[in-house]
Amino acid sequence: MRKFLSVLVICIMGIIFNKKTFSVEKVDIVITNGTVLTMNSEKEVIENGVVIVKNNKILEVGKKGIEKKYSAKKIIDANEGIIMPGMINTHTHVSMSVFRSLADDVPDRLNRYLFPLEKQMVSPEMVYLGAIHGSIEMAKSGVTTITDMYYFEDKVAEAVKKIGIRGVLGESVIKFPVADAKEPFGGIEYAKKFIEKYKNDELITPAFAPHAPHTNDTKHLQIINKLSKEYNVPVLMHVAETEKESEIYKNKYNMSPVEYLDSIGVLDERFVAAHLIFVNDKDIEILKKRDVGIAHNMVANIKSAKGISPALKMHDKGLRVGLGTDGPMSGNTLDIIGQMGYVAKLHKLDTGDRAALPPIKAVEMATIGGARALHMEDKIGSLEKGKLADIVIVETQSPNMVPIYDAYSALVYSANASNVETVIVNGKIIVEDKKLKTYDEKLSRKNMNEFKDKVIKIAETL
Amino acid sequence: MRKFLSVLVICIMGIIFNKKTFSVEKVDIVITNGTVLTMNSEKEVIENGVVIVKNNKILEVGKKGIEKKYSAKKIIDANEGIIMPGMINTHTHVSMSVFRSLADDVPDRLNRYLFPLEKQMVSPEMVYLGAIHGSIEMAKSGVTTITDMYYFEDKVAEAVKKIGIRGVLGESVIKFPVADAKEPFGGIEYAKKFIEKYKNDELITPAFAPHAPHTNDTKHLQIINKLSKEYNVPVLMHVAETEKESEIYKNKYNMSPVEYLDSIGVLDERFVAAHLIFVNDKDIEILKKRDVGIAHNMVANIKSAKGISPALKMHDKGLRVGLGTDGPMSGNTLDIIGQMGYVAKLHKLDTGDRAALPPIKAVEMATIGGARALHMEDKIGSLEKGKLADIVIVETQSPNMVPIYDAYSALVYSANASNVETVIVNGKIIVEDKKLKTYDEKLSRKNMNEFKDKVIKIAETL
Repeated sequence: MRKFLSVLVICIMGIIFNKKTFSVEKVDIVITNGTVLTMNSEKEVIENGVVIVKNNKILEVGKKGIEKKYSAKKIIDANEGIIMPGMINTHTHVSMSVFRSLADDVPDRLNRYLFPLEKQMVSPEMVYLGAIHGSIEMAKSGVTTITDMYYFEDKVAEAVKKIGIRGVLGESVIKFPVADAKEPFGGIEYAKKFIEKYKNDELITPAFAPHAPHTNDTKHLQIINKLSKEYNVPVLMHVAETEKESEIYKNKYNMSPVEYLDSIGVLDERFVAAHLIFVNDKDIEILKKRDVGIAHNMVANIKSAKGISPALKMHDKGLRVGLGTDGPMSGNTLDIIGQMGYVAKLHKLDTGDRAALPPIKAVEMATIGGARALHMEDKIGSLEKGKLADIVIVETQSPNMVPIYDAYSALVYSANASNVETVIVNGKIIVEDKKLKTYDEKLSRKNMNEFKDKVIKIAETL
Repeated sequence: MRKFLSVLVICIMGIIFNKKTFSVEKVDIVITNGTVLTMNSEKEVIENGVVIVKNNKILEVGKKGIEKKYSAKKIIDANEGIIMPGMINTHTHVSMSVFRSLADDVPDRLNRYLFPLEKQMVSPEMVYLGAIHGSIEMAKSGVTTITDMYYFEDKVAEAVKKIGIRGVLGESVIKFPVADAKEPFGGIEYAKKFIEKYKNDELITPAFAPHAPHTNDTKHLQIINKLSKEYNVPVLMHVAETEKESEIYKNKYNMSPVEYLDSIGVLDERFVAAHLIFVNDKDIEILKKRDVGIAHNMVANIKSAKGISPALKMHDKGLRVGLGTDGPMSGNTLDIIGQMGYVAKLHKLDTGDRAALPPIKAVEMATIGGARALHMEDKIGSLEKGKLADIVIVETQSPNMVPIYDAYSALVYSANASNVETVIVNGKIIVEDKKLKTYDEKLSRKNMNEFKDKVIKIAETL
C-alpha cells in the first residue's frame, strides 16, 4: 500500500512537472532562420532571429530558441533571408495603375492628358480594378500599408481589403466638379459617408484628402480641418510640390504654402503633407511644431524634374518622414524597395556627402518613419511585441543579394521589388513564395488591358 | 500512253512547284509574339514581331508571318513580352562581387578598405569565382556584353565564357605592385600574354586597362597606346572621375584630365573612358574629335556623391555614350535595367526638364549606345539582319509591367532586373524562363559565402 502510494505520488508529480516543462502556447505563425531588422528604437538587429505571431499581432521577437515555447499552426523558414517590418507607402493614387506608362514626360501632362482622361475614365469600376492591380503590385513587393488620395475612395477601400493590405485612404476634395462629386468641394460629403462606413475597420483608416492648397480654398480647408477633429481622421494633401504653387502664395499673401496653411490653422497632428519640395527652414520649424506627417516621393519628384525635398534635413530634425511612390502615372512603380535606393543616393548627391542618408536611415523611412508620418507608430512600422503583425521576408538567394555584409545595405543598394518572398499583413499570409494568395493576377492583367483599349481611344483625341 | 505522260508531267511539275512553295530554310531559333525594339537607325518598333536566329547571327527581323519561311530547332513564344537587343555594361569590375555590401558609404573607402582588402584577397581563384557570380547576375538581368577592368583578367575571361556572355576585358596597369604584377606597370606584360591568348576568341575582346591617368604616367600611357594600335585592342580607363584628379592636372599642367590625355596623344578610337564627370565643353570637343567611347555610370557616381556626368549632352552631340554599373562594391547591382531608370530621371533633375532623356534614349544608351562606346556597333547593340544574336526577352506579365502604352517607358520606368525572362548570346540560349542554364547558382552562392568569411576576418583588422 505504501509502495502503491509512493508510485502514485511520483506519477502525479511527474504529470504536473511534465505539464509545466512542456506546456507550449498555441500561436499562429512562427518565422525562423532569418536576420530580423526590428526597426525598434534601438534599431536592434537579430541574427538568426525568430518572430512569433498570434492572431493579428506580434507576440514575441527574439533569438533562435524562443520558438520552443510555442506550438504554431504555420512555421515559415526564412532561409537566411531578411525579416523586416512591412513597408509603408505614404502617398499614392493607386487606381491610376490603369494609366501607367501613358504620356510619360509630356510637359503639362496634368492638364493635357490626366484631367481629360480622368473626366472620361474615372468610374467606381475603374477605381476598384485599378486599385486591385496596384495593390497586387504593392503586396508582392512588401508594401503592407498604402496611403491613397483619389475619387470613389470607398472602392479603393474594397480593393485594398480584398488584396489584404492596410490602407489610409483619403477621399479627394477639390474646388471643381469631379467624377464622384458634381458640386465643387462635393468630396466633403462623399468623405463623410465614407468615413462613417469605415471608421471602425480593422484594415482601413478613412481620411479627407483636399487635393492641394490652390485647388481648394481657405473656407473649405478649415471645414475639413474641423471635421477631421470631430471624426479624428487624417487629412492628406499635396503641399509645396511645384514652383507655381509657391508663386501663388508668395504673390497672394507673401507666404510659402506651408505658412499659408499654418496661418489658416489647418496644420496639426492629423495632417499628412506629400512632397514638400519647396520648403525653407522656417517652414520646417512650422511643420515640426504642428507635428505634421511627411510623405517623401523622391522618384516621382525627380522624374518630373521638380527637385529634391529636404526630407533628410526634416528627418534629422525629428520630423515624421516616410516614403511614397506617388501614383503609377507619376512614379510608375508602387514598391518602396526601389524608393529606398533612390532616396539614399539622391540625398548623397544633393548634400555632396557620400555618408549622408546611410541605408539604415532609408529602411527607417520606409518602415517606422512611414508609420510615424501616419501617426500609426504605436501600431505598425517595427517588429516589436504587441504591434500588428505586418511582416515581410526578403529572400537573399538571388544573385544580386549575395553576399551580404550588411543587411541594410543589401536592402537599399542591391534588392529590387522581386526579392520579396513572403508578406504577412495583420497576421495573415497574403504572399508566399512570391505568389499572391488573395487574387487571380491573370484576371487583373486582363482587366487592365481592357481599360487600356478604352484609354488609347480617348488619348488619341487629346 | 499520252495520258500516262500527261499525268507524269503534271506530277513532276507538282513536285517542283510544291517544293518551291513550301521549301523552308532550317534555322536555330524563332522568337515570336513580342514587341520588337530593334534599336536600328530608324528605331523601328515591330508590334507582334518575329526574330529569326541562325547559328550565332540574326537572320531576319520582321512582322508576324515571316516565321513561316523557316523551320526552327527551337521556337520561343515571347508571350507579348518585349524583345530587345542584349544590354551592354560598358564598365565594371565584376570580380568585386565578393565584396558587395561591405563598407558602403565609408569616406575614403578606397584606401581604407578596398586596396588593403584586395592586397590580401585578390587571387586567380577569387577573380574567377567573383566573375562567375557577377556574370550570373548580369546574364539573368539581360546583360549580354560586359566591359571589365581588373587583375588576372584571363580568369575573368574564363568565367565570362563559362556563363556564356560576351566580354571586353581589360587587364589593369597601375604604377604600384598589385596582386598579379609585382613590378610597377607589370600589367602591361600580363596584358600582352592575355591578348595573345584571346585575340581570336568568339566572345572575348581582350584589352589594356590603365587604371586612371594619375595612377599611371605619361611614358607608360604612351607605351600602352602604341601597343593597343599594334594589337588593335581597346584601352579602358577611369577618366575625370574625381575632383581630386582634376586638381592634379590643373596644378601640374593647367589642363583637365582629358586635355592632358589628348596632349600626350593617347586618345583615339580604341579608347573607352569611364565616368567623365568632370568634363567641360572643350573636353567634350576633344572626346568627339578623337572618337572616344564613353561609359556613363550614373548609379555609382551619385552613390559616391561625385556628381552627374554631362553624358546626355555628349550623347546629343553624337558622342559614343553607353551605360555602366561600375563594380558591385560601388554600384552594388550589375544590371543595366536599373541604370536606365536612374539615367532617365537624373538627367531630368540635372537639366530641370522633365522631357529630357526620354525612355527611348535610355534604351539607346543601354544597347546600341553601349555598342558604339565599345566600337562594336557593326556587330552588336541592335536587332538587325547580320548582327550577332544577342537578344533579350523582358516579360510583361508581372504586375509592375501592366499595362503598357509605351514599351520604352515600361522598360525604363517600370521594369526591374527580375522581369528579364530569356537571354540569348551569340545564338545560344543561356537564360530561359528566368533560369540560368550554364552554371549552378547554388554553388556560386556557396563560393561567395566562403569568401565572405575570409573577408570579414580581414576587414576586422582594418
